[in-house]
Amino acid sequence: MTEQRIYLDSAASTPVADEVIQEMIPYLKQQFGNPSSIHYFGREATRAIQLARKRVAGLVGAAKPQEITFTSGGTEADNLAIKGTADYARSKDPSKNHVITSYIEHDAVLEPCRDLERLGYSVTFLPVTQEGLVRPEDLKGAITPSTALVSIMHANNEVGTIQPVKELARIAHDAGALFHTDAVQAAGKMPVDVRDLGVDLLSMSSHKINGPKGVGALYIRDGLEIMPIIHGGGQESAMRSGTENVPGIVGFGKACELAGGRLPEYQRQVSALRDYLIEKVLSEIPHSRLNGSKTNRLAPNAHFTFFGVNGEDLIIKLDEDGIAASTGSACSVKKQKPSHVLKAMGFSYEEITGSLRISLSMQNTKEEMDRTVSALAGVVKELRSLSPFKSKYYT
Amino acid sequence: MTEQRIYLDSAASTPVADEVIQEMIPYLKQQFGNPSSIHYFGREATRAIQLARKRVAGLVGAAKPQEITFTSGGTEADNLAIKGTADYARSKDPSKNHVITSYIEHDAVLEPCRDLERLGYSVTFLPVTQEGLVRPEDLKGAITPSTALVSIMHANNEVGTIQPVKELARIAHDAGALFHTDAVQAAGKMPVDVRDLGVDLLSMSSHKINGPKGVGALYIRDGLEIMPIIHGGGQESAMRSGTENVPGIVGFGKACELAGGRLPEYQRQVSALRDYLIEKVLSEIPHSRLNGSKTNRLAPNAHFTFFGVNGEDLIIKLDEDGIAASTGSACSVKKQKPSHVLKAMGFSYEEITGSLRISLSMQNTKEEMDRTVSALAGVVKELRSLSPFKSKYYT
Repeated sequence: MTEQRIYLDSAASTPVADEVIQEMIPYLKQQFGNPSSIHYFGREATRAIQLARKRVAGLVGAAKPQEITFTSGGTEADNLAIKGTADYARSKDPSKNHVITSYIEHDAVLEPCRDLERLGYSVTFLPVTQEGLVRPEDLKGAITPSTALVSIMHANNEVGTIQPVKELARIAHDAGALFHTDAVQAAGKMPVDVRDLGVDLLSMSSHKINGPKGVGALYIRDGLEIMPIIHGGGQESAMRSGTENVPGIVGFGKACELAGGRLPEYQRQVSALRDYLIEKVLSEIPHSRLNGSKTNRLAPNAHFTFFGVNGEDLIIKLDEDGIAASTGSACSVKKQKPSHVLKAMGFSYEEITGSLRISLSMQNTKEEMDRTVSALAGVVKELRSLSPFKSKYYT
Repeated sequence: MTEQRIYLDSAASTPVADEVIQEMIPYLKQQFGNPSSIHYFGREATRAIQLARKRVAGLVGAAKPQEITFTSGGTEADNLAIKGTADYARSKDPSKNHVITSYIEHDAVLEPCRDLERLGYSVTFLPVTQEGLVRPEDLKGAITPSTALVSIMHANNEVGTIQPVKELARIAHDAGALFHTDAVQAAGKMPVDVRDLGVDLLSMSSHKINGPKGVGALYIRDGLEIMPIIHGGGQESAMRSGTENVPGIVGFGKACELAGGRLPEYQRQVSALRDYLIEKVLSEIPHSRLNGSKTNRLAPNAHFTFFGVNGEDLIIKLDEDGIAASTGSACSVKKQKPSHVLKAMGFSYEEITGSLRISLSMQNTKEEMDRTVSALAGVVKELRSLSPFKSKYYT
């Protein structure tokens, strides 16, 4: 490792921006009060949270800052949205015991839904197209008067496909159901406006957009009632108890402000870099394919299949070359189970196995893309030479 | 405000130690990987968590680091312990639907218990003595074959009373129930050893011991199975999903190491300072009383009643003098409800209203105690002169 490492896994996590760290530090050191305290230290902490709440609300177009509930991250926000809504709905009307989601959601949505099944709810998992899109007509067909909630992600974490959230939310509302979207990958990387989308609940994460880990938020539309999942001192309007993570919340607020301010530039720069990478990969590496949608695609995402190669081996080899990429969701890689997203898109075992996710950021450069493609070409060739499919793909 | 502010609310929160911040910073900046990633950045994050887990386990005498599950704080740890145990027990044996706790627990324990009641569990709240102690015979009398869990706090957050946890845990076990203790105020401030105590579950918080906010832990005895409350990517051995708060966890680990290392000195120094304060208050301020236990008391805690005074007014006046104290739990102060702890201890409305909690740290000095008592004497006198009880207490 003499050269600088290349980080191509921004969908998994991102470094905290210097401006963000600078705003956080005082709340670790001098302004360390508990926001529930009524003295000077408590008031300073409360003020800081109020500003952060405004900034987070601003990024997603929430009309009122109090529509933002801070959580410990995107996963908790998803759990709160899904279990909190289902629990509340059933407590008011026991027949409201049905939830609809899709097969390509993050585990942070799928697993709470499976927990609901354990608790006697019925859950419908919608299929997707080969590009990873949920079809509005499928939602129409699945929704019933007992449907309490529809939860469909805004942009997919593996293949970057952007869902028709506005249309899906309207279908849910027409049938009397609430609509939640997991916008952990979308918020800060594409324009997200809760009012335009018409969603009731929206999950966000800080560490995907150069904020600190350990903090996220759930947008809960004003007037909407749900049940908390963490009970205690009644912080966050009793929606989420526990002493607020003040430095984390301050950092998240700043990260949202930065992400909002740079969004047009981010989208232009990162998608141009991604398109440059995609073109180069497809033209220089034989038997490679781009997965997902060409048009409805998140700016930072590129997702390939390299036939005749094992994606895990690819990651390990690239890592030896100082390049950090992923086969898919970071959260499921360690479990070594084949991607449920690609399965739902109808991929064969071979297509799933050979897949690689590259997720970019504004810190990446064209030179890094060149180095990446050159390394990738070499590694793919090497792995194919050792593959049982050698005769088919080795050139 | 020309003089330095005096912070006497360490039970509410504490500043993050410089050594802790220093260990955290690299995990915000360069080592920002997602621990679930298999590349270099992910492995560095995983390594950092492993070290932190060892350090946290070390502070409470856990035999195996994997007995520590990181959470977003003490409140989440309490929720996980209580709901996770009750949910699991009932799923295995529907007759195990009873939980025992006490009236003086923190809301982070009381509220999940009340949520269990909503879900059809039965909950017994044990009374306490005037010193705030749970009587072992009361537990013996309340426990039944249907009791799944007993949850009694280690040290009380308002009056500092230390419970006979070891004896209570033995009673629970003898009756076939599990035992959880909320050690958020105790861990790092007195010797806490899960094996000696014989507890099955123990909650901790980072920001009470000069670690960052937004992180805590639940000790879950090896072999014990409970249900998670946050579902998703399966982090923390599937006990707590969501991308790990790496910098927070690193900071918490360091804070535990520091707290463990200084513990004897901390106890000696802080309790000496507290006793100096108590003696001075009681001798210099008429109609004042120390609440709680004289012997079974957490080193940093002093809790007084000043008769004929409103505690809220006292806090506000002290704050004007640059002194930060509390009437009780920070978490319930904003709700302006009279302390449920003091009520359970049999205090009259007047005794509750006039109460003040001072919680010290190693950063406090004898000079600060002198300034505090002098300010307190003045403020108490002033408030009494305006009180309807003036004739009774104004001297």
